[in-house]
Parts: sequence; structure tokens; C-alpha cells
Amino acid sequence: MRTKEDYFEDLARLRPNVYIGGEVVGRDDPRLAAGKNIVGITFDAQEDPALADVIFAESHLTKNKINRFTHVHQTSDDLLKKQKMTRLLCQRCGGCIQRCMGIDAVNALSVITYACDQENKTDYNGRFIEFLKTFQEKNMVGCCAQSDAKGDRTKRPHEQTDPDLYLRIVERRKDGIVVRGAKAHNTMAPYAEEIIAIPTRFLTASESDWAVAFAVPADTPGIRLVTRATQVRPRRPELDAPMARFGAADSLTIFDDVFIPNERVFLAGETAYGGQLALLFALYHRHSYTGCKPAVTDLMMGAAALVAEYNGIGKSTHVRDKLADLVSVAELTYGAGIAAATESQAHPSGTRIPNVVYCNVGRRHAGLHIYREYEILCDLAGGLLATLPYDEEYLSPEVGVFVQKYIKRVDDISAENQYRCFRLISDISVSAVGGVLQYAGVHGGGSPVMEAIAIMGTYNVEEKKGIVKRLAGIKD
Amino acid sequence: MRTKEDYFEDLARLRPNVYIGGEVVGRDDPRLAAGKNIVGITFDAQEDPALADVIFAESHLTKNKINRFTHVHQTSDDLLKKQKMTRLLCQRCGGCIQRCMGIDAVNALSVITYACDQENKTDYNGRFIEFLKTFQEKNMVGCCAQSDAKGDRTKRPHEQTDPDLYLRIVERRKDGIVVRGAKAHNTMAPYAEEIIAIPTRFLTASESDWAVAFAVPADTPGIRLVTRATQVRPRRPELDAPMARFGAADSLTIFDDVFIPNERVFLAGETAYGGQLALLFALYHRHSYTGCKPAVTDLMMGAAALVAEYNGIGKSTHVRDKLADLVSVAELTYGAGIAAATESQAHPSGTRIPNVVYCNVGRRHAGLHIYREYEILCDLAGGLLATLPYDEEYLSPEVGVFVQKYIKRVDDISAENQYRCFRLISDISVSAVGGVLQYAGVHGGGSPVMEAIAIMGTYNVEEKKGIVKRLAGIKD
Amino acid sequence: MRTKEDYFEDLARLRPNVYIGGEVVGRDDPRLAAGKNIVGITFDAQEDPALADVIFAESHLTKNKINRFTHVHQTSDDLLKKQKMTRLLCQRCGGCIQRCMGIDAVNALSVITYACDQENKTDYNGRFIEFLKTFQEKNMVGCCAQSDAKGDRTKRPHEQTDPDLYLRIVERRKDGIVVRGAKAHNTMAPYAEEIIAIPTRFLTASESDWAVAFAVPADTPGIRLVTRATQVRPRRPELDAPMARFGAADSLTIFDDVFIPNERVFLAGETAYGGQLALLFALYHRHSYTGCKPAVTDLMMGAAALVAEYNGIGKSTHVRDKLADLVSVAELTYGAGIAAATESQAHPSGTRIPNVVYCNVGRRHAGLHIYREYEILCDLAGGLLATLPYDEEYLSPEVGVFVQKYIKRVDDISAENQYRCFRLISDISVSAVGGVLQYAGVHGGGSPVMEAIAIMGTYNVEEKKGIVKRLAGIKD
Amino acid sequence: MRTKEDYFEDLARLRPNVYIGGEVVGRDDPRLAAGKNIVGITFDAQEDPALADVIFAESHLTKNKINRFTHVHQTSDDLLKKQKMTRLLCQRCGGCIQRCMGIDAVNALSVITYACDQENKTDYNGRFIEFLKTFQEKNMVGCCAQSDAKGDRTKRPHEQTDPDLYLRIVERRKDGIVVRGAKAHNTMAPYAEEIIAIPTRFLTASESDWAVAFAVPADTPGIRLVTRATQVRPRRPELDAPMARFGAADSLTIFDDVFIPNERVFLAGETAYGGQLALLFALYHRHSYTGCKPAVTDLMMGAAALVAEYNGIGKSTHVRDKLADLVSVAELTYGAGIAAATESQAHPSGTRIPNVVYCNVGRRHAGLHIYREYEILCDLAGGLLATLPYDEEYLSPEVGVFVQKYIKRVDDISAENQYRCFRLISDISVSAVGGVLQYAGVHGGGSPVMEAIAIMGTYNVEEKKGIVKRLAGIKD
Repeated sequence: MRTKEDYFEDLARLRPNVYIGGEVVGRDDPRLAAGKNIVGITFDAQEDPALADVIFAESHLTKNKINRFTHVHQTSDDLLKKQKMTRLLCQRCGGCIQRCMGIDAVNALSVITYACDQENKTDYNGRFIEFLKTFQEKNMVGCCAQSDAKGDRTKRPHEQTDPDLYLRIVERRKDGIVVRGAKAHNTMAPYAEEIIAIPTRFLTASESDWAVAFAVPADTPGIRLVTRATQVRPRRPELDAPMARFGAADSLTIFDDVFIPNERVFLAGETAYGGQLALLFALYHRHSYTGCKPAVTDLMMGAAALVAEYNGIGKSTHVRDKLADLVSVAELTYGAGIAAATESQAHPSGTRIPNVVYCNVGRRHAGLHIYREYEILCDLAGGLLATLPYDEEYLSPEVGVFVQKYIKRVDDISAENQYRCFRLISDISVSAVGGVLQYAGVHGGGSPVMEAIAIMGTYNVEEKKGIVKRLAGIKD
Repeated sequence: MRTKEDYFEDLARLRPNVYIGGEVVGRDDPRLAAGKNIVGITFDAQEDPALADVIFAESHLTKNKINRFTHVHQTSDDLLKKQKMTRLLCQRCGGCIQRCMGIDAVNALSVITYACDQENKTDYNGRFIEFLKTFQEKNMVGCCAQSDAKGDRTKRPHEQTDPDLYLRIVERRKDGIVVRGAKAHNTMAPYAEEIIAIPTRFLTASESDWAVAFAVPADTPGIRLVTRATQVRPRRPELDAPMARFGAADSLTIFDDVFIPNERVFLAGETAYGGQLALLFALYHRHSYTGCKPAVTDLMMGAAALVAEYNGIGKSTHVRDKLADLVSVAELTYGAGIAAATESQAHPSGTRIPNVVYCNVGRRHAGLHIYREYEILCDLAGGLLATLPYDEEYLSPEVGVFVQKYIKRVDDISAENQYRCFRLISDISVSAVGGVLQYAGVHGGGSPVMEAIAIMGTYNVEEKKGIVKRLAGIKD
Repeated sequence: MRTKEDYFEDLARLRPNVYIGGEVVGRDDPRLAAGKNIVGITFDAQEDPALADVIFAESHLTKNKINRFTHVHQTSDDLLKKQKMTRLLCQRCGGCIQRCMGIDAVNALSVITYACDQENKTDYNGRFIEFLKTFQEKNMVGCCAQSDAKGDRTKRPHEQTDPDLYLRIVERRKDGIVVRGAKAHNTMAPYAEEIIAIPTRFLTASESDWAVAFAVPADTPGIRLVTRATQVRPRRPELDAPMARFGAADSLTIFDDVFIPNERVFLAGETAYGGQLALLFALYHRHSYTGCKPAVTDLMMGAAALVAEYNGIGKSTHVRDKLADLVSVAELTYGAGIAAATESQAHPSGTRIPNVVYCNVGRRHAGLHIYREYEILCDLAGGLLATLPYDEEYLSPEVGVFVQKYIKRVDDISAENQYRCFRLISDISVSAVGGVLQYAGVHGGGSPVMEAIAIMGTYNVEEKKGIVKRLAGIKD
Repeated sequence: MRTKEDYFEDLARLRPNVYIGGEVVGRDDPRLAAGKNIVGITFDAQEDPALADVIFAESHLTKNKINRFTHVHQTSDDLLKKQKMTRLLCQRCGGCIQRCMGIDAVNALSVITYACDQENKTDYNGRFIEFLKTFQEKNMVGCCAQSDAKGDRTKRPHEQTDPDLYLRIVERRKDGIVVRGAKAHNTMAPYAEEIIAIPTRFLTASESDWAVAFAVPADTPGIRLVTRATQVRPRRPELDAPMARFGAADSLTIFDDVFIPNERVFLAGETAYGGQLALLFALYHRHSYTGCKPAVTDLMMGAAALVAEYNGIGKSTHVRDKLADLVSVAELTYGAGIAAATESQAHPSGTRIPNVVYCNVGRRHAGLHIYREYEILCDLAGGLLATLPYDEEYLSPEVGVFVQKYIKRVDDISAENQYRCFRLISDISVSAVGGVLQYAGVHGGGSPVMEAIAIMGTYNVEEKKGIVKRLAGIKD
């Protein structure tokens, strides 16, 4: 099975089309290292016996043992294991494991290409299965490019002044299609090998040019990755820590008339399936969020509990109640994911689809509480997070002794551990990383309002009205 | 299988020891009818094919088909079906189905009597199994008497000025024990056939007299049921509705030196198991709440959706978002119950025990949101709920025509349906019933703070701290 | 100055046109006594030296000393004193003092009749001043009838299928007008002497028939008061308490072609002023709410603090924090009312108008927290509120001794005081009174969304955008 | 009156004792420029006629016209003007104006030195008045050093393993005292001219060495300022904006056996007044927060309204409601500050003291809502904030055209303004600046729990219990 080292080496060979800080760079640029390290965890996990039960799956195509990040879920148990894997790996990097993007797209495509073919006699599923075989065999890293630029939010794709504001087909050739547009917020695109593009919303019959899905290598001609990278403030070697090596990069991915060969085109005009694909990816991705968001809360909870202990208030009842709040956020979300797997359904394609309501109430709950989580952490950590002296002063020959003297709190915690604890919390709170965690917590995978829409589009409210009508003696 | 009619008839034969409104009455007093009607639903369900899958279970003792309200859960699926049954039946009565009290106590006793016997060579489990056979065979209705009077909350049972403030053994005889004290908030006790008493809290070694559990007929000499009954304002026949026939009664159950024969004594001095029994009943009961609380939310949601429709605002986005809030309360709670069943464990006694964390985060979530649910309903219903003319004026020859004229809202809803809708919401909001639903929502089955304690007593916070320490480079 | 006894006697002389429980009754019906007792407090206050500073004002018309409930505010200090009077008197009745309805309507009319006359050369202000002189001299009790039946909420008055769903002029005569329609939720109308009717919303130019304001005696031919009365459960004499004597009644007030003589007509067709009148009454009324809502919170806070003490947890930090929450609700609301008075403006008519933003943020804050207040009270009181034995059992020769024994908590609080405390909280929580307090808390004086609309209609958001544009270097 | 230029020049002459990033630097270090620019606004205001009414005061000592940041408040109006000035100037810098630190300390000292002298025949007030004359005459910039290092939070100052963890007197000489310790979180200390040190908490009789207050030049021998500076990501000149020039720096201020001459010692051993001084500074500072926090909310509100408009959703009702939430946070806080001034009291020293309850409920309200404000802004802004391309790519010859094309939203807003808007919000959200605003919002001036303690230490809860007892018929 391909290893992290293989992945890093292959990445380095890609054509430099990453634009960052005024330069165009290759995948070996140091600003991408922190993101690559996180994806690397998904390869390292292959070596860890403690993770064997979750990181490996059996391919339904080849019966080979594969990395679960390339697997199409066949059973409830697959969904439960994917959820658990996501939580465990996110705990290791203290945030988003990122690689779920690709696999959630792949699962959605496995259903939609099949369903489209059934109705339209297209052959998308055959192409997709061929792609999937390679994807699994090579243990490939794919990102999902979904969010369009979208322009004026009150207008549909075909109503925009600039039609490119949603990615679209500008030319149809015998051997493929040419696409133009941009996809925003593409987490991990700068170190993905494949970019899997899918629509972002429901489409009307007159929007067939926008009903397009495909997968292409990330350095395909015409693709430019306008990149922003986020990681914590660098540390001095004496105070180094794993957190310092993790981060992420997102891109605005530009498709400047990119040719996609037919064997990589998975949808090209079937508007009904375009909308369904958008929704189904969101569903798989929200199920992944029932794994990753609890891990983020685990981080917040561990940080809150640790800093409370270091502040000498670990046994207070108010701390207990606030930790219980955090546990509740994590476990209500995770529990909803379990329920979504338990109540999942088999699709004729063989792919397992998690329950819509439970995925959405779970993701929504997490999204509605990320700021509350930060508030609790802030409350328990205290103001020092915002005024913490820098590493350089902590280690300074002139003032280090004072910093170390005055940072001490309870006797049995060393100044260094005290400092490391505050430093880590400062890294995830008083920093761009903190802002990203907050924004991703709300908007990543769809904002709470998107989940409200998904829930109310599915939920049987009429049945509930019926309960009330019966009790009230109302006859229609 | 015994029917509702059998149950009503047997009840009527009990010695009158119900004290209400200054009188001592029998179980045929009209103030108890509304509560009895709700328990009656659990018998009527036996006749409803749509409920067959949930209302019946196979006794693990006799292999007979029994009413699930007398069943000891053997599998995850049993727990899932109990949860589902609870929700479906609570939907039918618009509130608490009440009979879960007894079965949750029975399940807890099935575990604790077994475990106590294993350690102490007692024979409680044998007695209990005999009791259970009768309980199942006769399809009996049992209540659970748990909450003691408790006196000064800052003192332990043996520290109280009056030792009777926690129910205790005052005499141990060859053939049984004599108990004295009172149990508060005993839902359905005035129409239960058996009172199952268990301890309310952890007990120290010096509190063996308070470590007592037993089951006795509700009219055993020395038992007095000081009763409060709650139901909606009576309706005029022209405006009758099922809601008007449902209600509840609770008692302060007084044990004035009551003799309990040995065969009905299930714990008498083993303090460690007293505390475990208290906790385990709470756990089963909280799992039941993951079924009943979503049903209460279904009622609130149905009412909110219906009144929004009748008010002509059913399509507003703010209504959609508020309904999504209600769906989330219901389904996060229910989903946690599913997760608790999925992650349940088999006890050596054969009884299935739901997961502690998921039961508790689920029940806690519901408890923290009941007032928010009422706020949403109030918001969407509008002020008319509090000033709604009475039935008598609605039907009045003199002013009825005006009431009917001015209560009209959207054209296609008749004045009567409009009135019935508002009347029902008024019944559950601007009434003692509303207050009881709010208090039961918070405190029934244990307040949110009790769940926080249960969660934090179990949850592995150290593991979460470890995640943070590793990321921060902290070595202890 | 007229006294409570005078008021009661005069009321008794009114023509019986109160419809309640299937009967038509006079103002001496016992179901109205509880409401009358509350209005009585506003007369009794005239005898209480501690209230002299707030209960009396100097009439700007006659320079006579008058009851402030008949005063037109001339200064900031008048507004501050009205606010303070409202809080103090509401504390005495444990809820809504009710008589603010009339005086808020009078103040709004003093401004709008003047402004309308200035523009339209009408003579409404002259008529109004004559009415006001009598109102002040006789120390009269007026209610305000504002909320129309409103029918379909998505349609304007003139678009309703039934045009009477908003009160309107159906005939214009030389000597007056004839009106038809109904006003809903008319607090205290069944024991008011004058009904002051005003429009409920903005009106378009084609809705001049709905732009109508007037004051008439409550027993004017054609007026029928369909009444609902709310008070606490009756008490046995041994457990009597002031709370048992207070309550309220609201009516759906029907105007069945009622003739209003010209001297009592204050608006009849000027649509622009109809809308302004609706809004200005709401403004004065919201300022009154910055006095009364804090008093309701004082009641909740006192109850929460008392029951915490009686439960033996009065010194806990979580109790302190919850009481601080209640203090904050009360004082942020009251503080906003002070700010509204401090930032008030003089109108050309001489009447003082409180600041729109502060009145509205204050009222809104209270409205958004009433359920949170109940939740805190429920949390601290515990489940006994919902299962409290009745007075009859507390006093029963047979079981009273047990109720008294088992209700005891901390040693130094007698069983009777313990019971009285729980009884009072039960009265305001697990009862129709509790429901009314919740609904009035949200909707009385305009729901939070109405205040949001009022705020955003006034607030200078553009200025705030300008701050951001300047900092961002945005030039339009 | 001294100008910004004078202030900058004088600063540059101070002995370099600022430690930052591994160096010791002078006040002309570029990392301090952003903070100095903010203080500079308080000087520039002297030239702005629009601010004349608030920026100038009349010295009660000299009757000279002085900058209000050096004034001791004599009247309610002084307090109102200070509050208004604070809001207006904070609006200009998009955050904390910082200079309130010094003036709040000065006002607290004006009261406590007087009161201490009255009781103890000390002469602190005389010394203080002399200092104040200079402070006013020279228009000096002072910071307040209050928060001690505090060590183990569960121990008092004299119980700490290291007694220096609270600043203390280590030697008393004829001509002055020598102090040792450190003060944390000293906003603006690195560009203050005077450091005013006061105690941080109540002190017991055995803690007289910790009851110390004084003012000294910031470069006094033995003082070292361990500094952390925060400002937004630098901008390319083409996209420059005022926000880029503002920031702040805080220091851990180390007092390594610093000699304080008698004329600058304002408290040295009187423990009762040490505690009162801590509390009174907090009170003045919380009143200042009723000015600055609304300005931060103005910024959030303006940003939310602007981005909603740019996103094309400016007219949505949910946007209106969220803006109303923000207005309510701002104006309830500001209104509480007005009420605190209206209800302020004159102290015998002549200084005006704002009302304790209103200052504290106001500050607490802001502190409890800062995360909610960020959540609203995040909600309305959308995910782009976290993935916004850098300036370098926006301006890039290669990809700038794409960034500008795909960032466009509504037609009538240019790409540049769109970008500037998102850039500003990203600056205050997804950045260390955002984290600092959140932490300062909660903890600056005392966390909400400190305000709860202050409120409950003052508020007459017994009176509220009395209301309830009377209504319940409880006689003690």
C-alpha cells in the first residue's frame, strides 16, 4: 500500500501551479508542509496496529485490503467505522483530517452515476468504477471542489451577469469537455493529487451546462490554485510540539478552460442528477462531520480540562458543568452519526446511504455550538491567552527567568508545562488557526441553515400535525 | 393477555387509600380517570396491529408473548423497541405514558439483585424472578417510588434531624421488614397496582437501614397516597376532544410502618447495591426519556406547525428554522437513545444495559430545551393563547356568533378548527398541565445537573487531556 | 381624590355586559374581584406616604395634584417617576398593575391629536383635552383596546374577506360615528370605566375607515366584553395569602355597531396618524414595560432566592450566578428605561416622548428572557412544585401530619412557611397564571420581533457601516 | 495642550526596557507603532471640532481646559461625556482606545487616597493631587498595572509558595519603598509614560505588604516590559486602509526591586483600602466598558450589515433580526452606562462614582455576548473569510484577474470594495486580533463572573425575598 513518503514524492512531481504570497510554487513549498503532514497521518495510520480496525477496508470491487479513505461504504458497519476513523485521526492532528473530502465525493458519485445511468442510459458509472479502481489501488488523495464562486446570491447560475461564476461546460468535444469557472474554499487542493469537481446546488432544466462532475489531476493544464495556508506561530526548537507541524491550506481553484477527457467526466448535462449529487455529497460529508467535529470538541474539552487543572480549579462544579456541556456537544453529534449509520439504507448501486435527518441534526448541532465551545475555553483559560509572552522571552537570557517565575501557578506543574499548555490554547484561539476553526465549525460542510433546509425538506411534519389534530378533535 | 377493562376492574377493588382534595377515595374517583386513561393506552395497544412489533416481547423466563411494559430487555433490539414504543404511545396521549416507571425499576432490579446475590450470597434475585413471573403473567401495572422526602439537602440520610425523611427499615422480622418514610413525586401511584420502592441515592456503610427495595400492592396497610391530579380544563361536549380525557396524578406516598414480607424484599441493608440500584434505575429511566421526550417535542412541533399554518405564516423561513430547532431537540435526543442501544452491553444476569454517556447526554439535552420549546410555541402561537374565550362563550347563543366571527384567520380554516387548535395549545401552555410538562421536562428522571454528574463520573476526560498534552509536547 | 371604594361602587353601577362562563354579569361578579383588587392598589397607593413621590403628579392642565395614572408626562423626571411607580406597584401585586394601559393610550393621544390638528386643521386635540380634564379630575380607570382580530395575517385590513376583522367606521353621522369590529386581549377591560380604542398598525391611504380612535364608557350600548379571568387556585383560610386575592381578566371586546359621539372621537380617517398613534402607544407602553417587567423579575428573583434558601442551597455559587442572571434581566431592562427617559425628547404638544431605541431594546430584552427566568426558577425550586399536595391534605386531620412531616427541609424553616413558599411558586408556575405570565412576558406590549422592527426602523445602521468602510478604505 | 507628536517624541526618549521577540527595544520600535497610533487618536481628537464637547473637560483643580483622559469626574454629566467619548474614539480605531486605563485608575485613587487619609491621617491624597496636577498639565499617558501574576488561584497572596506572585513591598525606606513582583496583561504599558500600579484583590490584615499603590515613569530602573504586540496582517500599499495601522501591545510588567519615592506612593500598607481601590478601579473601568464595548459592537454590526449588503442579502428578515440582536447588545450595555451615570453618587472627595449595579450588569452583558457577536458576523459573512486569497494574489499579474473576477458578487459593488470588506472582516475574525477581541471581550475589565460577584455583593436580594414573603403570607 502506498505510504506517506510515496505520496510526498509523487506530489513533488506535479507541475507547479500553486499561487501563494505572490509566487507560483510546487508542492514542496514549506508553506504546504503543515497541511501535507496532516494528510500524512492517514498514511501513517496504516502502520499503527491500534488503528487497523478502522483504517483498512475491503474493496467491494477487488476484495483487496484498501485504505478506508478510498472505500465505497457497503454496510452500516462501514459507516460506523468511517465515523470512528475520522474522530480518531482528527484527534491526532488537533483539527480537520482533510482527506474525507475526496472519499465523500467518491461515495456520492458511486450512487449518482449509477442512478443517472439507470434513467438516462448514460455510462458514467462504468467510467467512475474504472477511476475508482485506480483511486483505491494507488491509495490516492483526492479533494472535492464543490463551492462555486456564486456571485450574486439572489440569482441562479444562468442569471448571473458573468456565467462563469458557477463552473460550467463551455465546449463539448468528441473526446471530452472544456470547463470554465472557479471553485472556492477547496481544502487540501494544493496537496491533493486529484481534484474531484461536483455541482454546488440544485439546477433547473435550463442549466445543463452547469451540471458537471469530473475528476482530474491537480496539475492539469488550465488549473491554477490560488492558495491561503494557515498554521500556528512558529516555535523555537526548545518549545517544539506536534501542534506546530500541523496546518491546512485552501485554494480558490481556477479552471481556465480546462479540458476533461471523457473517461473522467461523471456528469455532463443531467441537471436533476447535478442537484442530487450536490445534496448527496453534502450528506456524506455531514456524516463525516459527526466524526470530525467531536474530535475538535475533544481538543477543546481536553484543553479546557487541562487548563482548569493547571489553574487549580479542576474540581470546581462550574468546571464540571462546562465540561459536561462540551461532552454533550461531542457525544450528541457523535451519537447522531451512530444513529445515522444504524438507520442507514442500501442503495441499488450497493452503496450505503446514511440517514438524512440524523446526519443533519448532528452536523447542525456542532455548527451551532462552536462559538459556545470557544467561549467555555476562554472562560476557563483566562486572559493570559491573549497576552502570553513569546517563546523568545520565555527563553531569553535576560527576562526568561522572570517569565518562568511569574507564569507559575500550582506548585506541582512546571513552568514549562504551564507555558506549553497556554501556548497550545493560544495557538488554537488567539490566531488565524482559531478563526479558521470557528469559520469551519460554522460553515464547513454546510452552515446550520443548510442543515435546517435539508432536515425540513425530509422530515414528516405533517405526521406531527396529525398527532395534534387528533388530540384536538380537528377533522379536516 | 389482561385488558384495559380488567385493569380498571381490578383497580376498583383496591382498598381506598387515595387522599385528594380533603377526601379519601377509591381508584374509581373521577379525578383519577384521566391518568388511568393514559395507562389504558398501553393495554389498548395490544389490539392495534400497527403497534404489534413494539408492544409485545417474548419473556426470557417463560418464552410467552408479553406486554413489553413487563419485559426485561435482553438485546440491543429490545432497547430500541422499548424506545420506539415509548415514543409512539406518548404521541397518543400527548405526554407521559407513565407506565415506564415500573418497567425501568424492574430492569434495574433484575441486574442489581443478581449482582448483589453474586457477592453477598443473598437470594434477592430468586425472589425477584418469582415476582417478575407474576408481573409478566398478570400484565401488571407498577409504579416506581424513588425520590425520598430528603429534608435538608446538605445532609446525608443518617444525618437528618428526622431519620424518616429517607424511607428506612425500622424493624427486621423473621418474615419480613417494616418500613417508614415517604416517597415523593410518585407518578401514577394512585392507579398503580404495585408500588416498587428503591433508594434515591448513594449510601454510606452506616446507612444500611436506608438500603431497601421492595414491591408491594398499592393498598397494603399503612400506605397512604396523598394525591395531586392534573388535567386540562373540562370541555363542553360540542368541543370535546381526546386531549380532554388524558391527565396524570402523582402522590406523596406515605409508608406508615408498612410490613413487607420477605418474598417481596429485594434489598435490605446492602448499601453498595442501594446506590447502584438508584443509579441503574435512573439509567433505564433516562433511556426511556429518549423515547418520551421526543414525543413531547413531537406534540410541541405539531402544535407549532399547525398554529403557524392556521396563522397563515406556515411558509415563513423563520417558522422553518424554529421547526428545525424542534426537530433537532427531538432527534438529537432520540438519536442519543439509538446510540445508547447500539452501544449497550450485556450484563451477566442477561439483562441489557444501555450506554451511560448516550442516555445521559440525550436526557440532558431534552431537559435543557423544554423551556426553549415552549418559547417557540408561544412565539408562533401569539398572545391569543392567554386570552382565548371559554367554550361557553364560543357556544353562547348571545355572543358565540361574535367569537366565531372574530376568531377566524385564514379563509380555508373553519372557526371551529381554529378554536380547537388554540384550545389545545392553551391546554398545554396556559394551564397547570403546561407547568407540569415544564417541570417534568426539567426534573423528571433527573435534572440536567444530575445527568452532568452521571456523565462526568463516567467519561474519560483524562484521555482528552492526553490528546492535548501530546499535541502541546507536555510530558508529565 | 377618588378612592378604591368609589371606584368599586361606580363600577357596580355599569350596565352588565360582561360575558363569562356562559353568563352575562355585572362588575360585581366574583370572578372579576381579583383583577379589581390589583387596580385597587393604584388607589390605595394614594394613602401610602412611601409612594407619595411617585403616585402623585401635577396636572399640566389644572396644576392640581392628580394620580399619576392620569398624567400626561411633561419632563424626563415624569417618565422616570412613572417607570418607578410601575415597578413598585407591580411588586405589590406580584404581576401586572394593568392601569398603565389607559395612561399610555392617553399620552399617545396627547401627541397625535395635536400633530394631526396641526396638519389637518382638525380639532381632535381640543376634544381630547376636555376628555383628559374629566379623566384626571375623576381619577378614572381606562383600558386601551388596540389589537384587532386581524384575521389573515398576510392581508391588510381592507383586503380581509370580512372587513370587520379590523375595527372600522361603518357610518359617519353629524353627531358622531358608528364603529364595528372587535379588539382582542383587552387586559382589564371588564373593570375599566372607559375603553380607549386606537388602531393596531400602519394604514394605507385606502384604509381611512380603519383609522379610528375614541374613548367611551365601557357599558356603552353595543359593547360586549367576552371575558376570561385568571387567578390562582383558591386557598383554604388557614393558608390564605395576598397572592390569592390578585388576578386579571382580559376580554375580546365586541363593538356591534357602537355609536361614538363627536366629543369622544379622537381620530376618524387620517390614516397617517392612525399608524403613528399605534406606534406611539406601543412606545409609551414599552416604556411602561421597562418598569413592570423588572417587577415580574423581582418576583421571580425573590422566589428563586427564597426557595434556594429553604432548600438549603442559598449560598451555592451556581445559585449566586443564576440570581445574577435574574438581576441582569431586571436591571438591564430597567436601566434601558432610565436611558430612554434621560434621552427623551419634548414634543411641540408639551408631551415628553421617551427614546425609541432604549424603550425597545429594554422591552425586547425582557421578552427574550421570560422563559429563561422560569427555567431558573424551576431549576432552583425542584420538582415538588408540580406535585405539591393540596391545602386540603396539608390541613387534613388524617394525613396533614404526614404532609407537614415530610415537607420539612432545613430545620429552621417551619413546615408552614416551607409549604407557603412552594405554594406561591406553584401558583405562578404550575397554573394558568404561570402560562399567562409567560405569554404576557413574550407578547404583551409587542413581541420581541415587533421591537426588532421598531429598532431597525429607527437605528442608524448606515453610520455603523460608515465606520467599517472608513477603516477598510472603502470609498463608495 | 500637548500633541500626538509631543507624546511620540517624549516616548522615544525613554530608556529602552521593552522586551519583544528576543530583543530589548525602545518605544520607537515598529512593532509598537500600531498601539501608539491608537493612543494618538486621543490627541488628534483635540483638533477635531466634532469631538470638542467630549474630549475636553475643565480641571477641578486648576479650572484649566484639559484632555478628558486626565480628568477626575465631578458630575453625572462628566460620566456621560466620558462614556460617549470612549465610544466615539473606539469607533475610530475599530477597537480598544486603551488610554482609559490610566484615567480610571486616577479616578479610583482620587477617592481612595482621600478616604484613607480621613481614617488613617495619612497624606496620600495630597501627594496624589500633586501628581494629578502634573498629569493634567502635561496631558500624560498612564497605564494601569493591576492584575498580579497570582500563582495558585486557590491561595491568598501571603499563602503563595513564592510571595512575589503578588506585587509587594520588600523594603520600606525613609524616602520611599521598594517593590517586587509582576503585573500581567498591562495593555499599552509599552507606550505609556506612567505606570500606575494598584492592588488586584481584597486583602486581609496580614497582607499589608501587598496593599500598595503608586505611579512611576515607565522606564524607572528595575522595570522591564515583556511585550506581546498584536496587529492585522500587513497590507500591500494598493490595498492599504486605516485598520492596518491600528493594534495593541500588552506587557508582563516586571518590578525587579523598584524604588518608588514617597511622593509617588499612594498606598503602602492599609489593607482595607487596598481592596477598595481594586474594586473602585474595576467600577470605573467597567463604566468605561459601557462606552467601548458598544463601539466594538458598532464595528461588528457595521461589518455584518455591510457584508450582508455585499452578499446581496441585506434586506432579509433574518439579517434584520441579527442586526437587532447586535443593536441590543450595544444599546443595553450603553443604556446601562447611562443609567449608571444618572444614578451616580457624589463622594466626599468631590469625585463622582457611577452606580455599581448598572456598571456591572452593563459590562457583564457585553462580556456574555462577544462570542454571539462573532457568531452572527461569521454567519452573515460566510466561509470566504477563512479562505480569502492574499493581497499578493489579488494584485498578481498572473492570477489577479481571476481573483477579481471570481470574488465579484452583486453587480454594483466593485471587486476591490468587495475584497476590502472581506479583508477587514478577516482581519478582525481570522487572526490574532480576532482572538484578542474575543478574550478582551470576556476578560478585559473583569470577567462576567467577577461582575456577578460585584452585583450580588451589592444588590438587595433580601428586599426581593420580602416581596415574595409578603405575597405568600410568610411571617418569619
